[in-house]
Amino acid sequence: MSTGSPLLADLIEALRCLPGVGAKTAQRMAFHMLERDRPGARRLAERLAVAVEKVGNCRRCRGFSEQEVCSFCANASRDKHLLCVVETPVDQLAIEQATGYRGHYFVLLGRLSPLDGLGPKELGLDLLAARLAEGEIEEMIVATNPTVEGEATAHMLSQLARAADVRASRLAHGVPLGGELEFIDRGTLAHAFGGRQSLL
Amino acid sequence: MSTGSPLLADLIEALRCLPGVGAKTAQRMAFHMLERDRPGARRLAERLAVAVEKVGNCRRCRGFSEQEVCSFCANASRDKHLLCVVETPVDQLAIEQATGYRGHYFVLLGRLSPLDGLGPKELGLDLLAARLAEGEIEEMIVATNPTVEGEATAHMLSQLARAADVRASRLAHGVPLGGELEFIDRGTLAHAFGGRQSLL
Repeated sequence: MSTGSPLLADLIEALRCLPGVGAKTAQRMAFHMLERDRPGARRLAERLAVAVEKVGNCRRCRGFSEQEVCSFCANASRDKHLLCVVETPVDQLAIEQATGYRGHYFVLLGRLSPLDGLGPKELGLDLLAARLAEGEIEEMIVATNPTVEGEATAHMLSQLARAADVRASRLAHGVPLGGELEFIDRGTLAHAFGGRQSLL
Repeated sequence: MSTGSPLLADLIEALRCLPGVGAKTAQRMAFHMLERDRPGARRLAERLAVAVEKVGNCRRCRGFSEQEVCSFCANASRDKHLLCVVETPVDQLAIEQATGYRGHYFVLLGRLSPLDGLGPKELGLDLLAARLAEGEIEEMIVATNPTVEGEATAHMLSQLARAADVRASRLAHGVPLGGELEFIDRGTLAHAFGGRQSLL
């Protein structure tokens, strides 16, 4: 131990649970908080403890929530005819922040991956099927990641939608905005070419 | 708020007290901890709360410590004839980790900066003078930063040492290891040239 305080050394070690934080950054964070921002550090400790204790998953959409039903699901002003299915809560946040989407969500908390023990049951597909059977959803927007597992998941979701007679759609794939054709990977470019859309 | 959980939004906001953590990183950290590392997050919350509450300053060297006297000062195997004076606890850690130094430390918790209200009293120079007057210290190593304020602080420290009849030394300035002369700033290069040492 190279600090004069074992509690400080403990804190530095604990900070390394944060993603992307190594030994040096953890040191800098610990010293910064103790030297300059104890109120901020105290607030962080409290909120972290509360969040870990209280935040669970919404009964209806499986997103993060400290209530039985999250604030998205409880919001009556959101469009109840649209349901966007995502893999993780962070994808849900990304869509909420980037798009003007005002419908509801369903969070799979994973993707189809039998080797990792993630099957239809773990992804809550029975809950999703029940949701579709309620008859209110008119369009299910599949927003899984464009990976092999994400595609397999999307395929299964489309079957689920067909069984419930609900229209299913998928995020468009293609050249990202600001990207240059020269540097786009072949698969994406081929996909964008095949899926070209008419101008006007 | 773009998450389904107000507590999660609170946590994301609180994480921004960490140095170098902006909105995106705070989100990533919060989601990572809640999705994948709740034990780590709980431990972090506990240790942070304890550290903020308990870690104060060592009565003897002013470094961080949860005891009256820090583990450096309490360590009888360290050389009691050497005292290294640094500006901040993080400088103390840097020296401890990089060098084989096994003497004692004194932490100024700042540098001479009258405009910021930091004078001899705030830097604990009375405590340092009393320490030198004890008569055990044979060499005081001044390790303040090579900035204008750090140099002014070093100058005052050298006067303090002279008054107590203690030998004072200063970290060597010069070309950093691995640096290339071409890219070194003029001041440093001039200093390194003037302070050249004989080979063997």
